Amino acid sequence: MERLSVTVNRMPQLNRQLRLKTRPEGLVRREDFDLVEQPVPELKDGEVLVRVLYLSMDPTNRVWMRDIPQYLPPVAIGEVMRALGLGRVVQSRSAQYHEGDLVQGLTGWQDYLVLHESAKGYVRLPADPGIPLPTLLGAAGMSGVTAYYGLTEIVPVQAGETLVVSAAAGSVGSVAGQLGKIMGARVVGIAGGPDKCRHLTAELGFDAAVDYKAADFKQQLKATTPDGVHVNFENVGGEVMRAVLSRMVIGGRVALCGLISGYNSAERPGDDYGILVMKRLSMRGFLVLDYTRTREAVQALAGWIRDGRLKAEETVAEGLENAPEVLNRLFDGSHRGKLVLRVDARPAIDAGRTARVGDAG
Amino acid sequence: MERLSVTVNRMPQLNRQLRLKTRPEGLVRREDFDLVEQPVPELKDGEVLVRVLYLSMDPTNRVWMRDIPQYLPPVAIGEVMRALGLGRVVQSRSAQYHEGDLVQGLTGWQDYLVLHESAKGYVRLPADPGIPLPTLLGAAGMSGVTAYYGLTEIVPVQAGETLVVSAAAGSVGSVAGQLGKIMGARVVGIAGGPDKCRHLTAELGFDAAVDYKAADFKQQLKATTPDGVHVNFENVGGEVMRAVLSRMVIGGRVALCGLISGYNSAERPGDDYGILVMKRLSMRGFLVLDYTRTREAVQALAGWIRDGRLKAEETVAEGLENAPEVLNRLFDGSHRGKLVLRVDARPAIDAGRTARVGDAG
Repeated sequence: MERLSVTVNRMPQLNRQLRLKTRPEGLVRREDFDLVEQPVPELKDGEVLVRVLYLSMDPTNRVWMRDIPQYLPPVAIGEVMRALGLGRVVQSRSAQYHEGDLVQGLTGWQDYLVLHESAKGYVRLPADPGIPLPTLLGAAGMSGVTAYYGLTEIVPVQAGETLVVSAAAGSVGSVAGQLGKIMGARVVGIAGGPDKCRHLTAELGFDAAVDYKAADFKQQLKATTPDGVHVNFENVGGEVMRAVLSRMVIGGRVALCGLISGYNSAERPGDDYGILVMKRLSMRGFLVLDYTRTREAVQALAGWIRDGRLKAEETVAEGLENAPEVLNRLFDGSHRGKLVLRVDARPAIDAGRTARVGDAG
Repeated sequence: MERLSVTVNRMPQLNRQLRLKTRPEGLVRREDFDLVEQPVPELKDGEVLVRVLYLSMDPTNRVWMRDIPQYLPPVAIGEVMRALGLGRVVQSRSAQYHEGDLVQGLTGWQDYLVLHESAKGYVRLPADPGIPLPTLLGAAGMSGVTAYYGLTEIVPVQAGETLVVSAAAGSVGSVAGQLGKIMGARVVGIAGGPDKCRHLTAELGFDAAVDYKAADFKQQLKATTPDGVHVNFENVGGEVMRAVLSRMVIGGRVALCGLISGYNSAERPGDDYGILVMKRLSMRGFLVLDYTRTREAVQALAGWIRDGRLKAEETVAEGLENAPEVLNRLFDGSHRGKLVLRVDARPAIDAGRTARVGDAG
């Protein structure tokens, strides 16, 4: 490790902080923040002073500035902007931290952080981690871990499957795509512009890359996913995601990591899908025609009906010729239970066992 | 079984068919169909003549009328409207079907179906199934099986969990809610109007019911789900679903069965979520802060970086005071890999190991 050029022996030093002044609309402006300078306070027992070296710039920062429901409280007006960062201990009154140690965690947008040794969520790293410092915030940091988590636990990708990664030249996407290759998948990346696309295939080993800014984006996507898409590692949302979903195979899986296309939009933050990320929901569409155990299900249901544990309800309308109008009743809420049309209105037709004929509407 | 009143000995009989003439917009109109009468053809060897008794009226019928991507081809103009139905064999030239047998399957909107014994997707039932005929299309038929499939395989619900079912007075929803009770869940149903809501709790055993037409719908939903919602069996979509999602616990599960609120809408068929049903996709939102194996992931990632199998890329910008503008670069596509802000612009600050500092933008 090189010698630190920060002098720590002439307190008080000045700490610059960027504090949220107004909630940005659209892009963030410098005027949305107050730049406050104040002396670094004297350390108390158990505290360490951390010089913030690098700040991680993450799409989620933009979400934190918004006063909407999310997984952490929004940053309050007047509060130092929250951010993940990497710093070095320059002064310590804690036995757990030594001067020179690296610390990773929510440092915020400021020069110095006073950290108590009991604070949660901070990771101490050795003074020389053997890896470039910015990488500790990138491929070997939260971005890389996010990609790893997504592809190993959220939607494990199998060798031979086609994986599509959006924002594939970004911090998480570039790792996700490369992990997909390590795991044996065929990997198609989506990125903006021919330079990034070339980079994905030439430098990062992606099998193909698709330019979402190109006029023929959808055709490119189709051409590069001839067998459909098995897994989508989604970072973008909006039109890009819709295009990928339309290429997915029946039963495909989506890891919803981010929805950056909507983060600057007041109307549709993260599309309708945003809440799935915030609450880590899983959602699965299904059609009964895929079901293979129908006989077993019918037996169970019929048993419960006979036992009286399950009440079967039908609304029976009559006359084949009325089918169009009867169908509309599904949408106006005027029926209860199963809506059935008796084809022949004449009561003599096979009425013997239809004890429940009658209209609850 | 009662004697059939249909006479089968005076061929040819007339078969009425409703054929799709124009694709409906909004509600279905009778004029969207041609009512065609034609003689029932003579049976060939291996064929049976089925008198259609009951037609199942299903929301998915409305989807089939639309020329949009879906799980079956849309009904073609001029084609008999596709529908699930229940009929009785009135004439047979097949050893596999006997007169009097019940047959369930895609009968279509018509009086008679000529079925070949080799046709797939038809189920033969005994002449007297011991259950009312309409129930065979409802709680003991596809509607019931759909609910059973959803709650046992798609999102198994556990005893003690809170299950919310939308369109809870409908064919699938009423069974799903009752199954939830059988499985030991606390069940809250969403239905339209106080009568239906009362019916759910008084007759069907739901723990609570919420009226989506009420002005205080969201408050009702909140009050009846004090511990949040663990599982949502979703039949409606749109605003109703959004309200339920907002009540879900972290890590909640959604079985997406239907999105009836959008089926009549030209703009947003089934919301953005429709494709999840059509393609039976699973989608899972996630946040890395939930991940418990970070150390293992970082080790794997760092190992691949050292081996050269994983390329770590960073774009490093400089100067704490520039943080707001630098953050915007996440959204304009001007960077590659991880975007990191070096807090102090002076190169002497801990630059020793940041070999990759440089701006790819």
